[in-house]
Amino acid sequence: MLKDWNKPQEPAEKELEERLLAAREKLSAKQMKIKEKRLPVLVLFEGFGAAGKGSTIGKVIRNIDPRFFKVTTMNAPSAEEKRKPFLYRYFVEIPEGGKFKFLDGGWMEEVTRERLEGTLDENGYKRRIESVKRFERQLTDNGYLVLKFFFSISKKEQEKRLKRLEEDKNTRFRVNEGDLWQNKHYEKCVDVYEQYLCDTNQSTAPWYLIDAKHKKWAELQVLEILVSGIDTALKNSNLAVPLLQNAFPLEPIPSLCDISLDKKISQEEYKEKLDLYQSRLRELHNELYRRKVPVVIAYEGWDAAGKGGNIKRITEALDPRGYEVHPIASPEPHEKARHYLWRFWNRLPKTGHIAIFDRTWYGRVMVERLEGFCSENDWQRAYNEINEFEKELSDWGAVIIKFWVQIDKDTQLLRFNEREHVPEKRWKITDEDWRNREKWDLYEDAVNEMLKKTNTSYAPWHILESNDKKYARIKALEIVIHEVEKVLKKK
Amino acid sequence: MLKDWNKPQEPAEKELEERLLAAREKLSAKQMKIKEKRLPVLVLFEGFGAAGKGSTIGKVIRNIDPRFFKVTTMNAPSAEEKRKPFLYRYFVEIPEGGKFKFLDGGWMEEVTRERLEGTLDENGYKRRIESVKRFERQLTDNGYLVLKFFFSISKKEQEKRLKRLEEDKNTRFRVNEGDLWQNKHYEKCVDVYEQYLCDTNQSTAPWYLIDAKHKKWAELQVLEILVSGIDTALKNSNLAVPLLQNAFPLEPIPSLCDISLDKKISQEEYKEKLDLYQSRLRELHNELYRRKVPVVIAYEGWDAAGKGGNIKRITEALDPRGYEVHPIASPEPHEKARHYLWRFWNRLPKTGHIAIFDRTWYGRVMVERLEGFCSENDWQRAYNEINEFEKELSDWGAVIIKFWVQIDKDTQLLRFNEREHVPEKRWKITDEDWRNREKWDLYEDAVNEMLKKTNTSYAPWHILESNDKKYARIKALEIVIHEVEKVLKKK
Repeated sequence: MLKDWNKPQEPAEKELEERLLAAREKLSAKQMKIKEKRLPVLVLFEGFGAAGKGSTIGKVIRNIDPRFFKVTTMNAPSAEEKRKPFLYRYFVEIPEGGKFKFLDGGWMEEVTRERLEGTLDENGYKRRIESVKRFERQLTDNGYLVLKFFFSISKKEQEKRLKRLEEDKNTRFRVNEGDLWQNKHYEKCVDVYEQYLCDTNQSTAPWYLIDAKHKKWAELQVLEILVSGIDTALKNSNLAVPLLQNAFPLEPIPSLCDISLDKKISQEEYKEKLDLYQSRLRELHNELYRRKVPVVIAYEGWDAAGKGGNIKRITEALDPRGYEVHPIASPEPHEKARHYLWRFWNRLPKTGHIAIFDRTWYGRVMVERLEGFCSENDWQRAYNEINEFEKELSDWGAVIIKFWVQIDKDTQLLRFNEREHVPEKRWKITDEDWRNREKWDLYEDAVNEMLKKTNTSYAPWHILESNDKKYARIKALEIVIHEVEKVLKKK
Repeated sequence: MLKDWNKPQEPAEKELEERLLAAREKLSAKQMKIKEKRLPVLVLFEGFGAAGKGSTIGKVIRNIDPRFFKVTTMNAPSAEEKRKPFLYRYFVEIPEGGKFKFLDGGWMEEVTRERLEGTLDENGYKRRIESVKRFERQLTDNGYLVLKFFFSISKKEQEKRLKRLEEDKNTRFRVNEGDLWQNKHYEKCVDVYEQYLCDTNQSTAPWYLIDAKHKKWAELQVLEILVSGIDTALKNSNLAVPLLQNAFPLEPIPSLCDISLDKKISQEEYKEKLDLYQSRLRELHNELYRRKVPVVIAYEGWDAAGKGGNIKRITEALDPRGYEVHPIASPEPHEKARHYLWRFWNRLPKTGHIAIFDRTWYGRVMVERLEGFCSENDWQRAYNEINEFEKELSDWGAVIIKFWVQIDKDTQLLRFNEREHVPEKRWKITDEDWRNREKWDLYEDAVNEMLKKTNTSYAPWHILESNDKKYARIKALEIVIHEVEKVLKKK
């Protein structure tokens, strides 16, 4: 049993029953509030095998309409999931606003299992703890209610339950090797679990230890914590979240106005270098694939800066089975209903693959900021959230290349007019482009702030001077080749 | 090389280059038409290893904006995918309207590999062919353009290419065991491929054999077929599709007006049977899980018929880790942009799990029919498409249970009024419910037609008389238990 734990007192039978009835009713009543306020609720059930996590989830959801919840059982990561960052399979499971997600097992189980198996060393463990804390904090900062329960039973109680399950041929399959190992090495497990609970006990997402010896008492503890957690979250939903101080190494970067845009390249040099670099990149793509290095290339830039053509010169050199281009438009309803980074987590490449984003998560601090699609507190916080996101990718071993494609206002006007007048290009220009153009100065300020606050050493920005598109394409190829070679050499 | 094949003549160098330029330009111009008309285009690349499928895809997509296509490489099914029906992983990959999907390898590869490995017997093969033909026909019937290319090279040419790939350390990984096996057993493979091509050569989704010895010639053949295929599809987009004659065994079923709704159950009998049946179902759920039998339960019925409460009495008996309830509302934009069965394929359970649908794919022949969300030709075709869909599930080994929850018009009125006047129930009633009520007679006709045309022997309807909700709940439990027991006994 976990020590030093301020265990609440189990009430007498009669009080227990009364409180159960009251808590069930309250939870049932809360679900409409949650829907109305679009509160997303993520409930994590961790704990010992046979401690009754599943059956408690079963009782909790009886009080909620199926429209408002999902239950997901997290198994050990599949071969495919192992080719994504550690947090990937959890991030994609977060609920949308107005809904509950109950997770049976989760990142605690994965981290502590790896720790117990000895596949995670001290440094690896520390990195995991960092990732977990950031993940949970990003959720709560972005309006999620995150509740974490740890179900605890004694060694003897667990042994008894496992035996009972094994004796019945219909329940035998529920007892797996891991449960038996856990019971045999109970004390060792307690040490690792306690350490983890302690390391990840955050004020906005604290741990609730559940005394799970008696089923009804376990149910009551969970229900009462759920109800009071929801109450608090609903009350606090409009509070601004404190901004964190930047903790990442930032490199200096010039302001856009200081960037000289007269760089040019001749047609001959262009042809020659394009051929040369594309065939080099083709070789590197094979090597990336073979050595399972993931690459994330992010394109941002002014409308009509030449992002599309630039991306094309990269992809022409790539095997279509090993890359994907993700054009990012405004989010669909099911995307808007979740953490703004969700749709990017969902589009991450697997190891050995390249993902190219045509517009990115930086929309948060540009269009969403300027059009008021999120609050000031939201976009102010986003710089750090994005640095954290990219740190995850970098720690995972990804090559991260971020391009700002830069042109001046006159060049944009020329290109807009061309798009208006050439029939095949008409679809590329919309009224929105013209409206954005009117806000050029506001955008320029936002971009400068973004570049300065997210130009980290592990995921720096590269400016592509694109008044001459050919120059920008060759520069992009050079940078991609250089960055990929750098990472391949290090491995 | 495949025999009896009306091979087109490769043009001379100069003509080839000219036609290539023209075809590339045409494809590039077509993409806007495709977007405008919301045409979904699925392009399947099959063929011999090292025949150049990947590099041809690479050349084709150079002519298309990344916003309008995706490339997916289908590998052998993962452990998770093996727990879904054969077609699952293909159906979820279909493109949305206005976009291309290029598949590198697909269902042909899977079926012929199984055939060559000997894991698929004659009957299994025939069933797969049926599934494939229905799948492709359902796509083309629903407005998809499906283009299937088979890349052919001779044994000698393949041997040469594999050797070249193996000699270079950067491309060695591209040669896998399967390719070498294929080359060694080339003639045997040709036999199996020819049989498959012949068996699945349908008028609306014919095979195009590509002579892949010369890369540019292969590219040209693909581009020209793509362009002319798109032209035809755009021209034919408004043609009605012939209705297929019913080929499934239908059971008689009474009309709704002939169903007596005065069945009742006492409170004591209800309590007693509820306890009894729920604990039986709890046992069966364990057995289903252990023996990996999937279950699909579909609920349809009048508004306020008591579907929610009925479902609750089922799920109370289930382990939350082994079932999911899918409340079906109107489709989201990304769902609406695809075949109407896509969102249901996406929600299928894995083996050993239970999926409960609160409203279903039958929306096509009820609300979509009556509200004009699809054409008459669409919903007329849907009876057969749905029978085919359920046949897939049944052949896969799923228990399929379809409930129609029946009440009379007066009972609905009583319950609507109660919902209006009890604050906690207000959210359950909307203006739409009242509008639907006005169309009761139209709906009744549609339901009767639906029941008659989809009451197949392998997926029959069960009527739940629900003027007395308790009676309906007990009946549902009885049916679920009975149907599950029946299937478990057979296995």
